[in-house]
Amino acid sequence: MPTISEKGMAMPASPIRKLVPYAEAAKRRGIKVYHLNIGQPDIPTPEVALNAVRNITLKVLEYSHSAGNESYRRKLAAYYKSIGINIDHTEILVTTGGSEAILFAFMTCINPGDEVITPEPFYANYNGFATSAGIKIVPVTSVIEKDFALPPISEIEQKITSRTRGIIICNPNNPTGYLYSKEELLHLKEIVKKHDLFLSSDEAYTEFCYDGAPHFSAMNLEGIDNNIILLDSVSKRYSECGVRIGALITRNKEVLSAALKFGQARLSPPGLGQIVAEASIDTAAEYFKEVNDEYTSRRNYMVEELNKIPGVYCPKPKGAFYAIVRLPVDDSDRFAQWLLEDFNYDNQTVMVAPASGFYSTPGLGKNEVRIAYVLKKEDLKNAMKTLAEALRVYPGRI
Amino acid sequence: MPTISEKGMAMPASPIRKLVPYAEAAKRRGIKVYHLNIGQPDIPTPEVALNAVRNITLKVLEYSHSAGNESYRRKLAAYYKSIGINIDHTEILVTTGGSEAILFAFMTCINPGDEVITPEPFYANYNGFATSAGIKIVPVTSVIEKDFALPPISEIEQKITSRTRGIIICNPNNPTGYLYSKEELLHLKEIVKKHDLFLSSDEAYTEFCYDGAPHFSAMNLEGIDNNIILLDSVSKRYSECGVRIGALITRNKEVLSAALKFGQARLSPPGLGQIVAEASIDTAAEYFKEVNDEYTSRRNYMVEELNKIPGVYCPKPKGAFYAIVRLPVDDSDRFAQWLLEDFNYDNQTVMVAPASGFYSTPGLGKNEVRIAYVLKKEDLKNAMKTLAEALRVYPGRI
Repeated sequence: MPTISEKGMAMPASPIRKLVPYAEAAKRRGIKVYHLNIGQPDIPTPEVALNAVRNITLKVLEYSHSAGNESYRRKLAAYYKSIGINIDHTEILVTTGGSEAILFAFMTCINPGDEVITPEPFYANYNGFATSAGIKIVPVTSVIEKDFALPPISEIEQKITSRTRGIIICNPNNPTGYLYSKEELLHLKEIVKKHDLFLSSDEAYTEFCYDGAPHFSAMNLEGIDNNIILLDSVSKRYSECGVRIGALITRNKEVLSAALKFGQARLSPPGLGQIVAEASIDTAAEYFKEVNDEYTSRRNYMVEELNKIPGVYCPKPKGAFYAIVRLPVDDSDRFAQWLLEDFNYDNQTVMVAPASGFYSTPGLGKNEVRIAYVLKKEDLKNAMKTLAEALRVYPGRI
Repeated sequence: MPTISEKGMAMPASPIRKLVPYAEAAKRRGIKVYHLNIGQPDIPTPEVALNAVRNITLKVLEYSHSAGNESYRRKLAAYYKSIGINIDHTEILVTTGGSEAILFAFMTCINPGDEVITPEPFYANYNGFATSAGIKIVPVTSVIEKDFALPPISEIEQKITSRTRGIIICNPNNPTGYLYSKEELLHLKEIVKKHDLFLSSDEAYTEFCYDGAPHFSAMNLEGIDNNIILLDSVSKRYSECGVRIGALITRNKEVLSAALKFGQARLSPPGLGQIVAEASIDTAAEYFKEVNDEYTSRRNYMVEELNKIPGVYCPKPKGAFYAIVRLPVDDSDRFAQWLLEDFNYDNQTVMVAPASGFYSTPGLGKNEVRIAYVLKKEDLKNAMKTLAEALRVYPGRI
């Protein structure tokens, strides 16, 4: 029997999926499981998007252009202009989800064995794409006491070695919900410029900024056009995670041209997804206002309820729909599994993502979980009550 | 300005796309271009498939399971049973096109620096996926004089080194149209067994076998279950290239489990595409009969017409919808570009794929092109007439 590859062996299991079998078993026992573990919003996809696919008149579902349909790219460029990002449609490569944009950025910019710095906790799938590309993620720790703000520049610079080729950030941040300020971006610009690094900015949650806080895109850092790669996705913006449409955007022509070759090898991004995504750009402003209000209200409720529980600390995130929450438990991996295996409150339990999967420094995140506030208020209410009760009786409480 | 990666620089341009700018320029000059260069069929997608997506009642386009929707995988397993391949739905990983299945197979099974043997000419995008995975494609040359049959076992064994980890074949073959026989598959089995290699079999054209020739799947090679990986796609089967749905299928649990982790990192295959693909399985047998008749007739016509042209040789392929054709030209890359830049016959020209892009041995394929017979008879007729005329007047004719 032939052995699998080193990459195959090294490929990390997704921290948000490894508990799925326990959740399924709980459901089979008749227990209602509230999914606070995944970023799958319950917000309806805009009607204008669903109608576009319901009304297709195509006779043949053909390949699209490897960079994406031109009509979509033009509309996408107009969308970016509307949010203050001035790019041409030829600077956009449509990808299969934000996932592929990340993979292409790693593959195109970073040599195997080279390093990319990212603030931790970070989006766990960066690990998977790093393994695929054979590169190394170097974490610089951000801390809950400072709401997971960008670590000081001095700490980031300490991580720079001869193999450092780039920095990747997610803004607003998954998993922390932190929204980087313009000032923090300017700090990053200094490092990027000084060491001539790539800065990949994953901005899938642009629309999810709360309390009127402005989003400052890395694309608007002036004078470092060739260093910046914007990674984007329609998944959360229009609640259409399943269509798998994202984008890699850069003014660096070499990166764009090389990334397009990766795109040509896989032929084209999903065609129906592009139809949905293109139509989505016509979504009424009203939709975003309602969604934003809904998430603000869910966040406010959740943060308040969590901080009422003895020993729990939840910062108030300004973006995305996640929070990293500190819990009074011995080990959040064990706690998360216990919630599904050994606990129920009125036949209900909650599923959370242990934070250890979002750190790459060993030992960190042991008393933290990521909670996604993607459930409607009533479900969130039951979930919070259930979590409070769980923490009251959990044998590993500290 | 930071430099791109070695992979980014090494990534090959697609041989079927590098001429696209010349084709676009020709179209701007008012010339009708017959696309014999790409495998984009003009056959309508089955109505049952289009209706499935027209009638969606989903409110939220959610992520699917990383391995694909269970309902689809179960139906897919039943489809495979119906064509004599006995696998369980748990042995199927739904991928984003056959492309991702190839990439996952390389990533999961082959270490960077290791080698995979394939008969050349071969599907050019294997080069792209090999570059992504950091592995080496080792060609063993098949020849037009023998209709591109599998090269003798002795020649394949000569290519085996300490770094050889697998063999990949495409059956029926893109780009040659050759259909490997059961006997040839049994020869491959001996090598695979003797050297304990992975055998990846890309069978996207299963339904496209002509003259009643039977297709023998690598999955039916007995006693080497752990060595076999089936790579598949719905693109050609149902003329839905744009939905980007494929599959990686194996009875090797380690490979399946590792490939699923690559799948988890990218979250899920396209959701709407899966809906289309699942519904497609209900396509009436009539559809396939009609399509098969149509391609048989196109092939017969094309092969006959091509072989009438002085100096041209076209084997009669038994599968897929491609042929590698030998032309009396100095350099098929130059000829293909000349067709688009400097030639027209009655304001028409043809676009072909120079075969050099399908070989990795330098110098091979210089007098060959790949022609896809994906156009309806009338267009094919004009295309053949145009090609004959072009070969009459081409200055580099030899």
